Amino acid sequence: MEADESPTGGPLVERLALIGIGLIGSSVARAARARGAAGTVVCADNSAAARDAALSLGIVDNAFKNPAEAVAGADLVIICTPLGVYGAIAAAIAPALKQGAIVSDVGSVKQAALRDIGPHLPKGSHFVPGHPVSGTERSGPEAGFATLFEGRWCILTPPPDCAAGAVETVSAFWRRLGSRIEVMDARHHDLVLGITSHIPHLIAYNIVGTAADLETVTKGEVIKYSAGGFRDFTRIAASDPVMWRDVFLNNREAVLEVLGRFIEDLTALKRSIRWGEGEALLALFERTRDIRRGIIEAGQEVDEADFGRRHN
Amino acid sequence: MEADESPTGGPLVERLALIGIGLIGSSVARAARARGAAGTVVCADNSAAARDAALSLGIVDNAFKNPAEAVAGADLVIICTPLGVYGAIAAAIAPALKQGAIVSDVGSVKQAALRDIGPHLPKGSHFVPGHPVSGTERSGPEAGFATLFEGRWCILTPPPDCAAGAVETVSAFWRRLGSRIEVMDARHHDLVLGITSHIPHLIAYNIVGTAADLETVTKGEVIKYSAGGFRDFTRIAASDPVMWRDVFLNNREAVLEVLGRFIEDLTALKRSIRWGEGEALLALFERTRDIRRGIIEAGQEVDEADFGRRHN
Repeated sequence: MEADESPTGGPLVERLALIGIGLIGSSVARAARARGAAGTVVCADNSAAARDAALSLGIVDNAFKNPAEAVAGADLVIICTPLGVYGAIAAAIAPALKQGAIVSDVGSVKQAALRDIGPHLPKGSHFVPGHPVSGTERSGPEAGFATLFEGRWCILTPPPDCAAGAVETVSAFWRRLGSRIEVMDARHHDLVLGITSHIPHLIAYNIVGTAADLETVTKGEVIKYSAGGFRDFTRIAASDPVMWRDVFLNNREAVLEVLGRFIEDLTALKRSIRWGEGEALLALFERTRDIRRGIIEAGQEVDEADFGRRHN
Repeated sequence: MEADESPTGGPLVERLALIGIGLIGSSVARAARARGAAGTVVCADNSAAARDAALSLGIVDNAFKNPAEAVAGADLVIICTPLGVYGAIAAAIAPALKQGAIVSDVGSVKQAALRDIGPHLPKGSHFVPGHPVSGTERSGPEAGFATLFEGRWCILTPPPDCAAGAVETVSAFWRRLGSRIEVMDARHHDLVLGITSHIPHLIAYNIVGTAADLETVTKGEVIKYSAGGFRDFTRIAASDPVMWRDVFLNNREAVLEVLGRFIEDLTALKRSIRWGEGEALLALFERTRDIRRGIIEAGQEVDEADFGRRHN
């Protein structure tokens, strides 16, 4: 472990500004506090309730309505809002950024971050888009927790002309919060996350909608017998609606590509069921076990006991 | 709590025979032991490894290869095999059933149980199809645990001419194991479970297959970044392949009906993404939160801390 990754090292940045203090922003604040990653942590949030919660939880030193006030003097600014307001946020903070400031984000679509934030930022600032691949279905500053990023991947997608020092500072920051770092091209990120995150969420939302619309099965029955598998989808489908709307509007190309394949495959599966092709079904069902095994071996499965202790 | 539901009451049946000693069969054996629901517990299983495991785990008093030997003298026989062998099992045990024996099962498709088991059983025996709505993605006798059925629903779908006393005995048995009982028509059961269990499994298997077939994203990447939502699907998609093949082959009508609607809804959603219809997306994503809330309020969410303690 290098010195700057040690959980007991000194602050990696003097002043951290978080724009948006929901589940992810508040978890960054908590983790930065717990690991001493920043000297001072301030936030901006449009919601007075969120600002009050952040202050009374003691996870930030100051909370502003105006993002420009929050970023004044900050060494590292992390935008933790839904993607749809990235452009407006970037335009608002640009004039207030101090020389040499690093701007990052936590959004799920990196081409959109580059497109909407990058052009607004002044010369002398550095933009390092980031995406911590972790989260829960809960929302708001109360839902965050300091260990959310532990053992999870944080993907950085710096543009080709990004200063190496800025990428290293952001990497060190996330490593301090317990994450592992991967650097990749924004376009590839959006495709990978399309299949591992965006499509799963879309499908989960969709099946809950389909279930709710059935005339022959009541909502009460769906709830009552959800332990047969449906329940796991509703957890994902309880995720923040605005955040996810913005993901789908901003990762259209990759989502449509993967979704098209998913529907094709599902249609073939439907045909196998109609024609009673047991061997085709069995072949698919056996194949999918390998990937599950890989996830467990890669340590990317939640320790449910930990999860429960954190949340109950 | 009635006398016969008390976890500390005497045995509800003298001799219990479990045909198939996998996840569910072995959990029934464990729970019956733990709650003193049966005087003697025996099992039959085609697999010598499963029989050996059941014996060395001490969860059965005897284990047979031949199901006819296992049911000799049994008051209650519960078939815990995949649906595809129901007919053969029923034909094999029928001549060996004692007068007045009750036969039940735990399968996920109740019309198939009525169709494949019912006709084989002799006069003087009673058939009470059952379905405990619980399970995990693990398989085999080692995967079972005594608390699997606690707080979960067990659905019984007795045919119209079924003796009330037999339904009451099976109900009392499952209540003793911690379950809540619901009696419904087999056809309705298959439709309800089609949406709450069968379609979720099918979709989970399908997305894991779609992911594995992408040329532009490696299997390693899918595994690495699975924490974004995909992981939850792989858990379901690790369920027993043979069991699930048989579910889809035997609940064709309901599965095709619900799957057709799911694909229609998903195609509309795809169109909304293509055309950037943010309001339609947001409306769906907000609507699905209610159902999640209902599941938590109905106590049908897993206590993850418990889950972890049981399994780790």
